[in-house]
Amino acid sequence: MSAAASDTLRVPLDALDEQVRAALRSLGLGEAHVQAMARTIVAGQRDACPAHGIYRVLTCAHTVRAGKVDLQAEPLVEADGSAVVRVDARYAFSPLAFERGLPALVDAVRRHGVGALAIRHCFHYSALWPEIEAIVAHGLAALAVTPSHAWVAPAGGHKPVFGTNPIAFGWPRPGPYPLVFDFATSAIARGDLELHRRAGTPLPPDCGVDAQGQPSTDPIAVASGAMRTFGGHKGSALALMVELLGGALIGDWTSRESLAFDAGSGAAPCHGELILAFDPAHLGGADAAEGARRAEAMFDAITAQGARLPSQRRFDARERSLREGATVPAALYREVLAMAGA
Amino acid sequence: MSAAASDTLRVPLDALDEQVRAALRSLGLGEAHVQAMARTIVAGQRDACPAHGIYRVLTCAHTVRAGKVDLQAEPLVEADGSAVVRVDARYAFSPLAFERGLPALVDAVRRHGVGALAIRHCFHYSALWPEIEAIVAHGLAALAVTPSHAWVAPAGGHKPVFGTNPIAFGWPRPGPYPLVFDFATSAIARGDLELHRRAGTPLPPDCGVDAQGQPSTDPIAVASGAMRTFGGHKGSALALMVELLGGALIGDWTSRESLAFDAGSGAAPCHGELILAFDPAHLGGADAAEGARRAEAMFDAITAQGARLPSQRRFDARERSLREGATVPAALYREVLAMAGA
Repeated sequence: MSAAASDTLRVPLDALDEQVRAALRSLGLGEAHVQAMARTIVAGQRDACPAHGIYRVLTCAHTVRAGKVDLQAEPLVEADGSAVVRVDARYAFSPLAFERGLPALVDAVRRHGVGALAIRHCFHYSALWPEIEAIVAHGLAALAVTPSHAWVAPAGGHKPVFGTNPIAFGWPRPGPYPLVFDFATSAIARGDLELHRRAGTPLPPDCGVDAQGQPSTDPIAVASGAMRTFGGHKGSALALMVELLGGALIGDWTSRESLAFDAGSGAAPCHGELILAFDPAHLGGADAAEGARRAEAMFDAITAQGARLPSQRRFDARERSLREGATVPAALYREVLAMAGA
Repeated sequence: MSAAASDTLRVPLDALDEQVRAALRSLGLGEAHVQAMARTIVAGQRDACPAHGIYRVLTCAHTVRAGKVDLQAEPLVEADGSAVVRVDARYAFSPLAFERGLPALVDAVRRHGVGALAIRHCFHYSALWPEIEAIVAHGLAALAVTPSHAWVAPAGGHKPVFGTNPIAFGWPRPGPYPLVFDFATSAIARGDLELHRRAGTPLPPDCGVDAQGQPSTDPIAVASGAMRTFGGHKGSALALMVELLGGALIGDWTSRESLAFDAGSGAAPCHGELILAFDPAHLGGADAAEGARRAEAMFDAITAQGARLPSQRRFDARERSLREGATVPAALYREVLAMAGA
């Protein structure tokens, strides 16, 4: 590693991976979980997503100390030949459940044209885009949703009901990078609210209300009140849909039950996730190649006017990290190294 | 019918249906199309959605005069036993294609847990919520998307790429009314922009840009420039997803090709639609009933704080229309009656 600035380092990805795995092992996690979790954490740091990078080693440690997560459980995959694959994560972390379910999902989609992977009873902490990218690598389109903890008020209300409830989508493209987006349906990500709280800086306007339901830019007041959804009643409707698809539909919790189960421990949300995948070759039939070509022409029409495709910033960061190593805050990396016993 | 106000009437739904059918027949539409289209048009007027009510009789007439829509074509349903049902509408209006595909979609979802109905080559003019409600009536959840005409700029850009690209979703509930939403991913619906243009009133802020890419509230300037998506880059990402799922994925057009095909005729968009449906009994397994109960508890947590569930206003209007007849602008109704030869 080399010091790229006074307080950040450039760490080669294989070295980063090794230290993250060692740190996760120190928490008592089984090796299969260690491998799957390290993959998502290193990917987050590589793509310059600080909230989903090695900072997650510390939040995983916090969740482990809260005592509810199973450190060893092997996910139960139920693939019955239908288009639905159900995975019971058995109250362990989510990445291994996804990896165990992925082959059955791809198989189901190849056979039926569309398919669903319903992961239940997982402690979810990763971004959704690594999962989306793993599916899209098979030439499939994918859509994923998951509830979180009830921190977000519905439009027209002021008390928390929804989680930050991300929606992620991916579309296969020629070349190394697919079209991918992954965003919270809350007006601001929970991690960004935490950063404002720690820094003592005000939130952007319209992100939340205080406990009395009054608009506030004070991160402490909003944390004890409610965040808003993005995009008014439309964003609120989408957040509601995420609760239903990623929770009620698959027989798992909504963000309200997840937060109640957490009981103030501040652990990662425990709940479900729904991932849909689509085979363009099946859905498009004889016109599939033409559909793919039209998608590329549309992407060109977006970039030609100076607008950006979703995830472009992330892919640019990845390119640089692959060449030069990931940018890592030095103090944070020292904490991970200490956990790793390095 | 009776005069409810100087310029509106209350028309019993069966009388309205009869006149709408007669007006559609006068356009030369085949009887199966007449029946299916009248059902969606009367439903729109019944639910106080003026842009999707009997006003559509006039826009259908305009589309018919543009000469590209097939007035008679019977949709081709391809159900191959997979989870995907493909319907080729053969350049006719969309409602009959949906009705013809619905039984096969329900059958596919019952067998496979999830299913997709891909309608291609249709002139789409109805709202999506009647389709969502028809699926949800079978105890299924549903999600539908469709492109439109390229009128909307991507976030960070100023030239039209996307359509108004609605997203609609439904969830079955006990009692007469499901949970349903249906909204455009554009900041303002195209019909509302047209209303501002005719009335000479300014648009709300942030709805669009002029042909030079400058923010504008002038509906004429925005109509020749570009509308914006709702919710900034997140709404833009969703509009992009709609183009991909409802267009490229099913081998049909994006909103750009649909607008090019229209060639200035001002007809209804011609393209595709993707409808997904989900069987809670399959996806939720033994926990399905508990999932449904949690959904109801969440709805209660929303309404208990004075917030509204999506479509509540529409269902209230429906209740009143069923009792008292639909509210219909008198001048508009006279036009429909004239077409109907009444």
